[in-house]
Amino acid sequence: MMGDKHSLYHSVQDTTENEQFLEQVFRIILEEVVRKGTDAREKICNWKDPEELQSLLDLELRTSGESADKLLEYCQDVIRYSVKTDHPRFSNQLFSGLDQHALAGRMITEALNTSMATYETAPVFVLMEEVLLKKLRELIGWQTGDGIFCPGGSISNMYAMNLARYRTYPDCKQKGLWALPKLVAFTSLECHYSIQKAAAFLGIGTDNIVLVQVDDQGKMIPEELEREICEAKSQDRVPFLATWGGSALLSRQHRHLLNGIERADSVSWNAHKMLATGLQCAAFLLKDKSDLLKQCYCANASYLFQIDKFYDISYDTGDKSIQCGRKVDCLKFWLMWKANGTEGLEKRVDRAFSLTKYLVEEIKKREGFHLVMEPEFVNICFWYIPPCLRGKEECDDYWERLGKVAPVIKERMVKKGSMMVGYQPHGSKVNFFRQIVVNPSASEDDMNFFLDEIERLGHDL
Amino acid sequence: MMGDKHSLYHSVQDTTENEQFLEQVFRIILEEVVRKGTDAREKICNWKDPEELQSLLDLELRTSGESADKLLEYCQDVIRYSVKTDHPRFSNQLFSGLDQHALAGRMITEALNTSMATYETAPVFVLMEEVLLKKLRELIGWQTGDGIFCPGGSISNMYAMNLARYRTYPDCKQKGLWALPKLVAFTSLECHYSIQKAAAFLGIGTDNIVLVQVDDQGKMIPEELEREICEAKSQDRVPFLATWGGSALLSRQHRHLLNGIERADSVSWNAHKMLATGLQCAAFLLKDKSDLLKQCYCANASYLFQIDKFYDISYDTGDKSIQCGRKVDCLKFWLMWKANGTEGLEKRVDRAFSLTKYLVEEIKKREGFHLVMEPEFVNICFWYIPPCLRGKEECDDYWERLGKVAPVIKERMVKKGSMMVGYQPHGSKVNFFRQIVVNPSASEDDMNFFLDEIERLGHDL
Repeated sequence: MMGDKHSLYHSVQDTTENEQFLEQVFRIILEEVVRKGTDAREKICNWKDPEELQSLLDLELRTSGESADKLLEYCQDVIRYSVKTDHPRFSNQLFSGLDQHALAGRMITEALNTSMATYETAPVFVLMEEVLLKKLRELIGWQTGDGIFCPGGSISNMYAMNLARYRTYPDCKQKGLWALPKLVAFTSLECHYSIQKAAAFLGIGTDNIVLVQVDDQGKMIPEELEREICEAKSQDRVPFLATWGGSALLSRQHRHLLNGIERADSVSWNAHKMLATGLQCAAFLLKDKSDLLKQCYCANASYLFQIDKFYDISYDTGDKSIQCGRKVDCLKFWLMWKANGTEGLEKRVDRAFSLTKYLVEEIKKREGFHLVMEPEFVNICFWYIPPCLRGKEECDDYWERLGKVAPVIKERMVKKGSMMVGYQPHGSKVNFFRQIVVNPSASEDDMNFFLDEIERLGHDL
Repeated sequence: MMGDKHSLYHSVQDTTENEQFLEQVFRIILEEVVRKGTDAREKICNWKDPEELQSLLDLELRTSGESADKLLEYCQDVIRYSVKTDHPRFSNQLFSGLDQHALAGRMITEALNTSMATYETAPVFVLMEEVLLKKLRELIGWQTGDGIFCPGGSISNMYAMNLARYRTYPDCKQKGLWALPKLVAFTSLECHYSIQKAAAFLGIGTDNIVLVQVDDQGKMIPEELEREICEAKSQDRVPFLATWGGSALLSRQHRHLLNGIERADSVSWNAHKMLATGLQCAAFLLKDKSDLLKQCYCANASYLFQIDKFYDISYDTGDKSIQCGRKVDCLKFWLMWKANGTEGLEKRVDRAFSLTKYLVEEIKKREGFHLVMEPEFVNICFWYIPPCLRGKEECDDYWERLGKVAPVIKERMVKKGSMMVGYQPHGSKVNFFRQIVVNPSASEDDMNFFLDEIERLGHDL
């Protein structure tokens, strides 16, 4: 048995040692992630196949602990082989870039390590989350309402779907779906795949999600929606979902893109995308003010939410959530907002739109680049047509060959480590690049580089 | 319109300024959280009522950004009024304490800010997660299997319940619950409330969760389970769930408490609790090796999970998850394990058991303290009986008056800032203290302090 009197009596941790290790790791983070990881001249990734990477990293968990020096080496290795998503040429995902205030907020959050469930354990953050949610609701155009931060947009969409179901049929909570008529939800053919995941998870089934036809711009056709609703024998009303793009509300110039959002019942706003707060920062916002969240999710756990507490327990948020322990996701967003002000965030959004416009103009100017469609937001879909395919649109195998171009260029850029941009097919359209312009430190120079590099990597295909 | 040619061309962020701000915030974290926040002589919290706290903090989000000095003040304020969960006398939740290696892992995670969905964006972490999950499965006693890190234990339990449903009736994913017979799940009367939340969220309904009678130790009575199953007309099999306590598997001395766990189909293991990795770190572990997770959760989003990628796409984990973007939760756990070794983690678990034993012995020795029941794990439930109530067990209002003692002592300790421990009623048992001994740096001295302080704060009641 471990633990003689002495070792149990004294604290096992040495504070000075703790601090030294943290200090050294912080130095590595500053040098390797904050400095080099955001420097366009540095590689964005250091590609290794899974098997090779496995042999380069010493991932094994052993019986004995290892030395501080060894641990610092591991930290270096982890960073060396990780993708630098803060890099100005990372355009592979809906998030990109480093905001130092958001990162500072994340570091404080991690050090304080608490749960949002009660005011008792998260007094500052419970109040802060409410201020943020209120501000976001105001931007939507709602004077009242409710909300909660969720672990990501997909779970946020599940909240929305489940609440819509609960509002229509509160019995569902106790009796399950068997007590209800068959529900049908309507969404756009172009909706995010999390809607399907939500339907499966909530027991509704993906067959009961009707995907309504869209126009050339990917927008739901209202007449088609009406037709589908008439066709369905039974129905449920599912709120309008806007998983991406909420941040455009911060821009006086571009918020018209979301005209009508104030008529929605709920909105999912992923600040970790365009606003670069860092993963995860998904606000689920609700227009309802009848305490629907608490009614729907409460489980009355007396060991956490005692009714004889010495403070106003309406500040305890645990009953609003499907989670028990809930991570603090508000501080990073709040600190970033404090640092930039609403107008600073607006500038960031406007800048992304301007850069998008710049990139679109460049694409139109350059031979061999072809837009899939005019972008409305900050994702630009385009094909790169290598010299040998230009003017061959009429050939039988043109599209088949074009579809093989993007994957090869992608492989080459990743192995070179020069940049990262996604590609995808869509319906009958073969693989095209999908450039996301959200990195707050990206510049026109980076946009030129993206196109130049694609040409360099693909001219021989 | 913002964005003249110049400002779009150049990067908007000043790296030196970024680093300076981060440096200053790191200093504050070291001084206020790592040093003072873990010092038993410092206050554990600085209690303010919600209204007062609101007026002390400047939470408002303004149009203009604020200065770096002001922002640093805000950071100080946030820490000042937050609860120090790293403090050796924080015993209010199932997590407590600071592990410097885990914190270092969290800081790196936040700086690298990536998503677990694909190998492409998280090569190191995809491999690392697999190594960790495999190690945890081995500790359970499984040679094969699968798993995933989820945002918390409650969502992990939802995965378990949904997978059990999917395995029995795969049709549910497409057709919803209407296509299925009425499902019934059996769990202990003493189960975590997340089981109820899961049933409601998944459309099963809380009425369809049968709570099986337990014995005096809170364990499910097998005969009662049999009886309930016979009574129910239709049934479904739901895996055994062990949301808390998985970490006891690390201890050769105490793992017998979980004998039989290897026969479970799935296990939820919350490393952010006893192992102090930091929120969130919940592993959902599965014995099945038929790729059930992917079958159940895949949505085949072609824009993320292209089939013509240049690497083995079985490494992409996105289709195993209900999430799209998924936070990296493995690095903190992995780095801590590397630093301590399995034997170091075992010592930590054993130490918690030893301290629990010490505290129980002290409670038995002291007048006015009374155990609710002998603890099997590291949560100790006890009443403090103030002098004026001692020997009055036969009085009509004894229990009513005793039930008011813990809330008052709790209020006094929080307002004094000396320590934090939870209380709760349970069934017919009136409010008792629930001490959780998991902080790796807590000592016998802290255990004595807990009891002394309760006496000091409650002797006049």
